[in-house]
Amino acid sequence: MRYKAIIQYDGSQFLGYQIQATGRTVQDELQKALTKMHKGTPVKIHASGRTDTGVHAKGQVVHWDSELTIPLEGYQRGLETLTADDIAIVAVEQVADDFHARYDVAAKEYRYFVKTAAQRDPFTRHYALHYPFSLDESRMNEAARLLEGEHDFTSFCSARTERDSKVRTLYAITINRNVDGWEFSFKGSGFLYNMVRILVGALLSVGQQKLTPQELQAALEKKDRTALNCRTAPPQGLYLWEVSYKEKN
Amino acid sequence: MRYKAIIQYDGSQFLGYQIQATGRTVQDELQKALTKMHKGTPVKIHASGRTDTGVHAKGQVVHWDSELTIPLEGYQRGLETLTADDIAIVAVEQVADDFHARYDVAAKEYRYFVKTAAQRDPFTRHYALHYPFSLDESRMNEAARLLEGEHDFTSFCSARTERDSKVRTLYAITINRNVDGWEFSFKGSGFLYNMVRILVGALLSVGQQKLTPQELQAALEKKDRTALNCRTAPPQGLYLWEVSYKEKN
Repeated sequence: MRYKAIIQYDGSQFLGYQIQATGRTVQDELQKALTKMHKGTPVKIHASGRTDTGVHAKGQVVHWDSELTIPLEGYQRGLETLTADDIAIVAVEQVADDFHARYDVAAKEYRYFVKTAAQRDPFTRHYALHYPFSLDESRMNEAARLLEGEHDFTSFCSARTERDSKVRTLYAITINRNVDGWEFSFKGSGFLYNMVRILVGALLSVGQQKLTPQELQAALEKKDRTALNCRTAPPQGLYLWEVSYKEKN
Repeated sequence: MRYKAIIQYDGSQFLGYQIQATGRTVQDELQKALTKMHKGTPVKIHASGRTDTGVHAKGQVVHWDSELTIPLEGYQRGLETLTADDIAIVAVEQVADDFHARYDVAAKEYRYFVKTAAQRDPFTRHYALHYPFSLDESRMNEAARLLEGEHDFTSFCSARTERDSKVRTLYAITINRNVDGWEFSFKGSGFLYNMVRILVGALLSVGQQKLTPQELQAALEKKDRTALNCRTAPPQGLYLWEVSYKEKN
């Protein structure tokens, strides 16, 4: 039987989602818990995608196969008991044998939180970017409209990205001002390595008048990361928010 | 000259406020920063009181003496630059030479946050108690009314407390329900070792019908911690919220 789970994690104490030779990772923590539940038989899990060191998840999706016959609630409780408290198991369900957490992704949403108060806040240092500058909302929205749609996002991904095609579709970018600062949401068909953090870095530069929407457009067209003059926003403000899947009939 | 500062800290990565033989403490972190600003001359700071491992502060107050003539803003920025980002310096002011952060305290407020959602939350594990039980508000308020006022709080402090007099005045206990759970506030003349955490533990037991307000009253009168049948609430929900001082003329 194949199982799907929605999980959350605070990424600040993990070396990212994906298992590494050394270091604490979400995948390793979950696989160890599942292996324990299977009396030592190794269980491999597959996620919708990786998240980097320090990046959080409110709705990461994983799947695994198991012959264990326990109620779904037992899975949820068992996994929470066997993992540290910076992981939470929101839901477990049984899915079709051909469901795949990564290959069947229809869309993903990432959110990025920015706090603009002058004073640094010790309580949100791992959960939002402290960026004590005023940002021009209409310019950021103008830039967001240029980025939406289907584009080759070579200029908006790490030069280390190995994927062949860098064409992705950004369905929607929304920028909301809140009491503490700003909340950015990015919904798209898929995201390249560091893409959301570079998009945020670019929007912040536009908002701060360091980059014009026209320069952003020109950089997008050049298909070269070095053509885009902005920093990659740091990981702590970033959350994998929701993953949605194709309906199968 | 004597300086007073209001500071905040996330207590989760500190072995409490007060300097220890080993381990990271808030006092040590601040004194090292001040000593650096004084070119190696040791500076000692005095706080309104200690906080334990894992306990946070939104408004801890400290004072120190210095011959350095720099603007107050320079102190604020210098200290923030020289301390880790789990400490923030909210304000620095010059005060009278006889001001004392501990001896001149008129009142202190502590707050304690409880989250009652069934699902554990990885993002608040260091900042609130996860207590997924329903609580009876009117019973907790009944108990709070019994605790307010001047009492010998021997039953509500750690047996390790060394102070001679355990008489303190609780000016007000307020209990507010919010979207995530509960927020408790305790305002008093001063608090004994572990007193707020034991008060919270007692109120939670009353709210969960494990203890009656009458049993609480009886335990208060017995002046013996073992007479009070409740746990000490864990540190992560606790914040030293505000310290107020006597007006001097």
